[in-house]
Amino acid sequence: MIPRVGSKVRTRVTVVESGRHRVRDDQLATEEPLEIRLQAAGETQTVAVTMRTPGNDFELAAGFLHNEGIISEPAQLNGITYCVDADVDADQRYNIVNVGLRLAGLPELATLERHFYTTSACGVCGKASLDAIAMRDCPALPPGPAVNPSLLTALPQKLRAAQGLFEATGGLHAAGLFDASGTLMCLREDVGRHNAVDKVIGWAFMQRKLPLHDCILLVSGRASYEILQKSTVAGLPVVCAVSAPSHLAVDVARRFGVTLVGFLREERLNVYAGAQRIQWNGQIGPEEIESS
Amino acid sequence: MIPRVGSKVRTRVTVVESGRHRVRDDQLATEEPLEIRLQAAGETQTVAVTMRTPGNDFELAAGFLHNEGIISEPAQLNGITYCVDADVDADQRYNIVNVGLRLAGLPELATLERHFYTTSACGVCGKASLDAIAMRDCPALPPGPAVNPSLLTALPQKLRAAQGLFEATGGLHAAGLFDASGTLMCLREDVGRHNAVDKVIGWAFMQRKLPLHDCILLVSGRASYEILQKSTVAGLPVVCAVSAPSHLAVDVARRFGVTLVGFLREERLNVYAGAQRIQWNGQIGPEEIESS
Repeated sequence: MIPRVGSKVRTRVTVVESGRHRVRDDQLATEEPLEIRLQAAGETQTVAVTMRTPGNDFELAAGFLHNEGIISEPAQLNGITYCVDADVDADQRYNIVNVGLRLAGLPELATLERHFYTTSACGVCGKASLDAIAMRDCPALPPGPAVNPSLLTALPQKLRAAQGLFEATGGLHAAGLFDASGTLMCLREDVGRHNAVDKVIGWAFMQRKLPLHDCILLVSGRASYEILQKSTVAGLPVVCAVSAPSHLAVDVARRFGVTLVGFLREERLNVYAGAQRIQWNGQIGPEEIESS
Repeated sequence: MIPRVGSKVRTRVTVVESGRHRVRDDQLATEEPLEIRLQAAGETQTVAVTMRTPGNDFELAAGFLHNEGIISEPAQLNGITYCVDADVDADQRYNIVNVGLRLAGLPELATLERHFYTTSACGVCGKASLDAIAMRDCPALPPGPAVNPSLLTALPQKLRAAQGLFEATGGLHAAGLFDASGTLMCLREDVGRHNAVDKVIGWAFMQRKLPLHDCILLVSGRASYEILQKSTVAGLPVVCAVSAPSHLAVDVARRFGVTLVGFLREERLNVYAGAQRIQWNGQIGPEEIESS
């Protein structure tokens, strides 16, 4: 076992380059399982196990549970702690999070199962996936904020500048929450891109900032259905990805009025949905139609 | 809803570049849920729902079930079909796969639950994750094949050349299976990187090529625990990733004797584990030690 110290670990690697090889030290992103347990009225129940990069685990748990509709405000929480059960090895305690709920008992397992089934896929066609989001108590998105393309194209560099871990390992996804003026509010990294988004939304949940009606989310990779599902439940009106969106991510954005930007680079971006929030300034030329 | 036609869909996108914007047609990777159901002795049971790119769905189901230890050889299958239940909408039938098993009854639900729990995370520390693989009936890996670095650095270009879909959408992960001489045997793409690996291994399963003792797996992105878990259960001795591995992927590789290569590019590669299969030829200089 490579000794694990926080969110990255050191290892030896043989580098082969231009026909020569050398051994050097390298850093890897830590990947460990996290078990999320609910506790209420003396009962305990495991609701999820996810492979994640240790760090901000309470935010990850809160973001996940908010997204799944199990909690809607911090007052429902009776504290989040790492496991201190005597029968759990010391090594494993930081891989188990107990979330205390102010309830007379645990949510019914059958309800939870239906819920998870619904959110992970539902019907099971793309349309049913969209309906599953609609059935949530999603806050309607505001018409704003209006964002300038130059504000958006500056975001990836801001994210990278703040990404110490990524620089070290090259192996982490990042999610960044920005305000409408492009100032970074929260950055989280993880080997799992859904986890990075859960951590950011969990941070906002704990800070009582939900719904995120005046914010922009940037993810370092691709935009999938699940990322749009999470951002929409959190009330985010603008979602940007450095890479491509999937067709179902675009469907979610169009159906719920999200501005979805993909392939966001220093000099360019694609708007897949919600173009009404993009502020076309005087420098932008007439609209051209081009078929590919 | 964007109309879905196979593995990619057309859409309109507003492209903003150098201060100008234009509207053009674009292609997106299709993302739809797939429900995998087991059928035996007239009973049916859902075992998984995954977001995936339609195409090679039977391979995806077979690869998933093999990896989970539910099936070990094609003779155990009584056919794989799309759902034809009268109460399922025509649109959704291609999102449900029924896997017929030659068994007197379905595997017990409790057994399955424990099984899935074990494979998705187990213990729940990294060491327990490794033990979970060891507890499987993993075939021991062979000492070979011996591979030349120049053979490996040529693989990404071969994968890209065969990746028609990726060229079109920029939004798909790819997994490629190569023989020991570097010839591409099977390429599969998916919005989910685990699904791409399941499809490749499912193809090999259906072709009766398991264990893949003389093969090389290349994935287009990062190497995580789950990818190494799947490749090891399939008997793959050499796994390459275009991006970084996680620390737990490296742990799995070292414990089970897998050669794990990361950051595989045209002129360079990093060997994280199993360097004994890398054939250092005469052109390679003396080993240098460098600390970072």
